[in-house]
Amino acid sequence: MDATKEVSVTDLKRPREEDDNSTVAVASMETDNSAPAVNGEQTKEPACFSSVIPGWFSEMSPMWPGEAHSLKVEKVLFQGKSDYQDVIVFQSATYGKVLVLDGVIQLTERDECAYQEMITHLPLSSIPNPKKVLVIGGGDGGVLREVARHASVEQIDMCEIDKMVVDVSKQFFPDVAIGFEDPRVNLVIGDGVAYLKNAAEGSYDAVIVDSSDPIGPAKELFEKPFFQSVARALRPGGVVCTQAESLWLHMDIIEDIVSNCREIFKGSVNYAWTSVPTYPSGVIGFMLCSTEGPDVDFKHPVNPIDDSSSKSYGPLKFYNAEIHSAAFCLPSFAKKVIESKAN
Amino acid sequence: MDATKEVSVTDLKRPREEDDNSTVAVASMETDNSAPAVNGEQTKEPACFSSVIPGWFSEMSPMWPGEAHSLKVEKVLFQGKSDYQDVIVFQSATYGKVLVLDGVIQLTERDECAYQEMITHLPLSSIPNPKKVLVIGGGDGGVLREVARHASVEQIDMCEIDKMVVDVSKQFFPDVAIGFEDPRVNLVIGDGVAYLKNAAEGSYDAVIVDSSDPIGPAKELFEKPFFQSVARALRPGGVVCTQAESLWLHMDIIEDIVSNCREIFKGSVNYAWTSVPTYPSGVIGFMLCSTEGPDVDFKHPVNPIDDSSSKSYGPLKFYNAEIHSAAFCLPSFAKKVIESKAN
Repeated sequence: MDATKEVSVTDLKRPREEDDNSTVAVASMETDNSAPAVNGEQTKEPACFSSVIPGWFSEMSPMWPGEAHSLKVEKVLFQGKSDYQDVIVFQSATYGKVLVLDGVIQLTERDECAYQEMITHLPLSSIPNPKKVLVIGGGDGGVLREVARHASVEQIDMCEIDKMVVDVSKQFFPDVAIGFEDPRVNLVIGDGVAYLKNAAEGSYDAVIVDSSDPIGPAKELFEKPFFQSVARALRPGGVVCTQAESLWLHMDIIEDIVSNCREIFKGSVNYAWTSVPTYPSGVIGFMLCSTEGPDVDFKHPVNPIDDSSSKSYGPLKFYNAEIHSAAFCLPSFAKKVIESKAN
Repeated sequence: MDATKEVSVTDLKRPREEDDNSTVAVASMETDNSAPAVNGEQTKEPACFSSVIPGWFSEMSPMWPGEAHSLKVEKVLFQGKSDYQDVIVFQSATYGKVLVLDGVIQLTERDECAYQEMITHLPLSSIPNPKKVLVIGGGDGGVLREVARHASVEQIDMCEIDKMVVDVSKQFFPDVAIGFEDPRVNLVIGDGVAYLKNAAEGSYDAVIVDSSDPIGPAKELFEKPFFQSVARALRPGGVVCTQAESLWLHMDIIEDIVSNCREIFKGSVNYAWTSVPTYPSGVIGFMLCSTEGPDVDFKHPVNPIDDSSSKSYGPLKFYNAEIHSAAFCLPSFAKKVIESKAN
């Protein structure tokens, strides 16, 4: 099947009707370049490759109208269409291998450390002795790799909707997918929303939601019923960390998430952010919340990572205790909006 | 004069010979699109406009090979060639007006607050009662605007090499160039290196070096003799803050700067960083050093900004005391390198 004919960023559902999507039209109108051989045969390139500079990948989306980040492509390693999304892996000139879902960069070998380490250790280093952890999404395995560094953890459940992401990551990103090799991991391929509804009440110490943007298969992971299921599945004083977009680009989405979380999580509700060069605007944020029960002070980590984890996974590249606390310091324009939702 | 024919990013001098500059070749080879009217007449577009998506500006440089950030252009407002560099101003679709020097984005109206506020208040809020401040570069006036918020300051000297930058900023960026209107400002158009050599010894409380990258007119501002002149011009316990590139892209340049500064500044030497979406990799760093004399603990600001400054310049958008301290918390990969230079 020549799946690439189906690939178009214009297929994405748009979360905000007021956004200008003319940039996407530009991207998808000029798809007629010849393409490199994939699996030995000549195929058409996906729209996001050929529309900008020949031989480059360009990331355009109605989520960030009027701008595009482009990476030079050395070789397309994989392109396919799963039941949920378009999946591309390419070797870039300067960022290592790159995983792209529905035209959006999910990880590059050069900067994945920042996202994976922060989304994992911000919650897990904020509570003593996490034992049972649930990961929703995160099919590349990078979050599993980071969870596995915590010696106290006994069980790591993962629910990822798209098996193709897992398979592709195991094939092309062994240093990321190494997380799947940990014997504590139970992988379920399925819908995270349904999984959480069926989870035993109060069963997890921590839930990590490693989702893509709220315009594809991850849409429901940004909505109130999902957060309610998360809160129900957590023990008292349990913690959740969810991917929560960019302060520079998506304050409207973030305001909604913060409002929802303040209603649902009766412990603490915090926003943190970190630098990830290949994400739009160069940053990504996280919502960190705890349920009613023992107090969780996310800004002052109580559970440092055991250095012995370096033996299996190499040393941490990005995360440390100072950068943990610093991640909660917000620019004034964002602080004002997020704190106003506190009341 | 049709200055745009001279515009080519390939003219840039390259700081590191091992970088791959084939991306620049792509950018400059395809310069044959029709262009919007500028000053009522049809002109050729600069190389950085037409090479990627028609109607978009793309930023490519041997300083960040293999990647490009692009902004959709609504209208080109100015393009010229000064004695030092190519100067472009355009109205972007989603980042407001944009100033570009030698093909590299210097500021956008949407995110200039982060850079201007951090490069200014990191040094000035770290010492009590700064009175005499020197700004090298910074011809857009944004740093002046921020220095002027400090009521203790009595004299602000600025030395900018390129008059065209000052003129263009006054014409197109009034909210940035408002800094020039402060009566404490003395503007000199000239070479910052020479200016500092002639400055009276021990005369400044703070020097702020708001330079472009070290591959154009700003090259000398990253070299040892310049830092020696800065140290000489500062009073004992005086402070300097210089633009110091990206942790993600330029650790080699940063290592050199840190080594030089450790030799020259006998007080404290620190690296800080902040998020600026339209700078390459989405971050920019700063070297913050003090001369021998009263101790300066940059991580704990002692001189908060007087709220009354909001009356003239509007409230601060980005800077606050928490984000000041957070800026000095570095990812592990950078911390290791920078701290190794401490010995």
